Amino acid sequence: MTDPADLTARLIRCPSVTPVEGGALILLAEMLEAAGFEVHRVDRNGTPNLFARWGAKGARTFGFNGHTDVVPPGDLGSWTHPPFSGHVEDGIIWGRGATDMKSGVAAFVAAAIDFVTATPPDGAVILTITGDEEGLGRDGTLALLDWMAAEGERMDVCIVGEPTNPDIMGEMMKIGRRGSATYRIAAKGVQGHAAYPHRAKNPLHALTRYLNDLIAAPLDQGTDHFDPSGLQITSIDCGNPASNVIPERATAVVNIRFNDLHTGTSLSEELNRRAAALSAETGVELTVQTDISGEAFLTQPGPFVDLVRDVVTQETNRQPELSTSGGTSDARFVKDHCPVVEFGLVGHFMHQVDERVPVAQIHQLKTIYQRILEKYFA
Amino acid sequence: MTDPADLTARLIRCPSVTPVEGGALILLAEMLEAAGFEVHRVDRNGTPNLFARWGAKGARTFGFNGHTDVVPPGDLGSWTHPPFSGHVEDGIIWGRGATDMKSGVAAFVAAAIDFVTATPPDGAVILTITGDEEGLGRDGTLALLDWMAAEGERMDVCIVGEPTNPDIMGEMMKIGRRGSATYRIAAKGVQGHAAYPHRAKNPLHALTRYLNDLIAAPLDQGTDHFDPSGLQITSIDCGNPASNVIPERATAVVNIRFNDLHTGTSLSEELNRRAAALSAETGVELTVQTDISGEAFLTQPGPFVDLVRDVVTQETNRQPELSTSGGTSDARFVKDHCPVVEFGLVGHFMHQVDERVPVAQIHQLKTIYQRILEKYFA
Ligand SMILES: [Zn+2]
Ligand SMILES: [Zn+2]
Repeated sequence: MTDPADLTARLIRCPSVTPVEGGALILLAEMLEAAGFEVHRVDRNGTPNLFARWGAKGARTFGFNGHTDVVPPGDLGSWTHPPFSGHVEDGIIWGRGATDMKSGVAAFVAAAIDFVTATPPDGAVILTITGDEEGLGRDGTLALLDWMAAEGERMDVCIVGEPTNPDIMGEMMKIGRRGSATYRIAAKGVQGHAAYPHRAKNPLHALTRYLNDLIAAPLDQGTDHFDPSGLQITSIDCGNPASNVIPERATAVVNIRFNDLHTGTSLSEELNRRAAALSAETGVELTVQTDISGEAFLTQPGPFVDLVRDVVTQETNRQPELSTSGGTSDARFVKDHCPVVEFGLVGHFMHQVDERVPVAQIHQLKTIYQRILEKYFA
Repeated sequence: MTDPADLTARLIRCPSVTPVEGGALILLAEMLEAAGFEVHRVDRNGTPNLFARWGAKGARTFGFNGHTDVVPPGDLGSWTHPPFSGHVEDGIIWGRGATDMKSGVAAFVAAAIDFVTATPPDGAVILTITGDEEGLGRDGTLALLDWMAAEGERMDVCIVGEPTNPDIMGEMMKIGRRGSATYRIAAKGVQGHAAYPHRAKNPLHALTRYLNDLIAAPLDQGTDHFDPSGLQITSIDCGNPASNVIPERATAVVNIRFNDLHTGTSLSEELNRRAAALSAETGVELTVQTDISGEAFLTQPGPFVDLVRDVVTQETNRQPELSTSGGTSDARFVKDHCPVVEFGLVGHFMHQVDERVPVAQIHQLKTIYQRILEKYFA
């Protein structure tokens, strides 16, 4: 039997702050190889990634996805136990990555090893583990999926092991995510003296009207499986030191989390349409630069979703909500490869000082993953 | 006869960029002393200022006010003739300060000297000339007026010789000015992730609404002698580099040019009232910091205004508009000492590259000032 709590503690002791490997993937590669997995490091542009398959290529395949990189620990002095100590006390493991998500990786690695060892399936299990989910993620799970496509490797379904439960194990699984896109609005007017505004065109007035219109009304009311889309202005900048001068330029950054009523491009078109209309009205040139982090997606409820939900319900005595809430995850990449759902631990303490996790929760998660494998291949 | 154009050229050759004296006040002090004026340098905190009086202290007194400091020349390579050359060609004098306002100072100095020499009045003429009008102005005309109060010196009326005509000599004189005040609005919310806005309070949303309300409706429709008040947002700043993070703080700067329906304080109260209301509604703490540069003022039409207007009409064949438009000037300080009006040259090229002035205009202005003195003491 593979102990997922012990493995979590050992992974926490690998200081794998993005994009540093820190020994975490090396540790996992050794364990998986020893258990009969075929293992490949799929690094790209310095980002470390691990691919592992038990069973034959091309067989019916169940996949897991996760990451071993962690966000920086912040102020070391604020931690009760050092962030890379993996300190265990009173049934709690402390350290950076304890919930997000070395415990999740440890749980599916332990579940996969014990499953293929105890009841070798007629099929394959693939684990895709990246060292860059917390950073830009351009060479993380994406690199693994690109490599798999080139090698003819394929998962039929996949679970991403990110924390999904707000407070209690079994409350929530995720069957999709809202999309996320960032729009940079640049306003270029005509500089001038504040006492003679008719000789100037104030970019801040146009930008204020533009942004106020964006936040004045909700983008939508939500859909069957999605919350309403949300828009946040995350910066406005001008940098004009002279209080009696109308500046020439200003910029704003808007982040939108959108549901399946929109795409990053449809929102871009709407923002550009509004910018063009206001430019025509005010003479201030408004331009929009679009950066789509991920589109909204939904894994339609069906046999795979039901299987995961049923096991979670059985093991936790709770029927998990099928949610699409929260930020983005690497599921936004996996969804282009195969149906994907997310289920993991309780998300408390993610990215915070004193990140920690109950040992019992990790064991429960391992059991859930192992039951899912058993049921899938039954 | 004192040649005001020659004096303008000589003053331009003094590189008196604020707060440098540059030889300009020294030159004027020598000329005025030679013409029988009692002259005092009234420097304060390193700012050079010149006081000159012809005639007895306490007599009926006509005053002039002006400044010899100039704004920086900017890109030297862009000037057709070097900015401190005082180059004269085809009846035009070139250089920084040619219109704002070494020509105006030269015109009233020449007018005053020739007037007291040709027709010594039963009264006094006081000239107050500062070396800091273009800067903060804290130790310029204010220092002269403070010193005069301490010394028992007094002007009964005063002309500020700033450029007042938009295009043609005689179009416009100023009998007041709008006030000017700057308000810095600080917004403090609660930082958070853009995907979880319900856990945060976005200061940029509150600030955008606040500013949009300010620019959505005019402050007033103007009054008998004043244009409508005007409000310009001159900066908004946040400096948040993370497009997926709701920032904690943001600031905005608003400049208001206001007429006699308002005071800097009444506007401050209104801005604070709105800030408090929006703070209560949004939970984002909005605070307003007030900096009043000058209050609106008006020299009521009457004998002094009529005298100036009649002379201008006679010498230019135009009846000048009694305006209160434009930015602030040192008249905002003089108005607390005595009735003040402004009349000077055509304001073209102020603060610009290739600032220049027709010689004939300076002579015309000198004649106008001299006629005003003659009529005042007649
Ligand atoms: Zn994560
Ligand atoms: Zn000036």
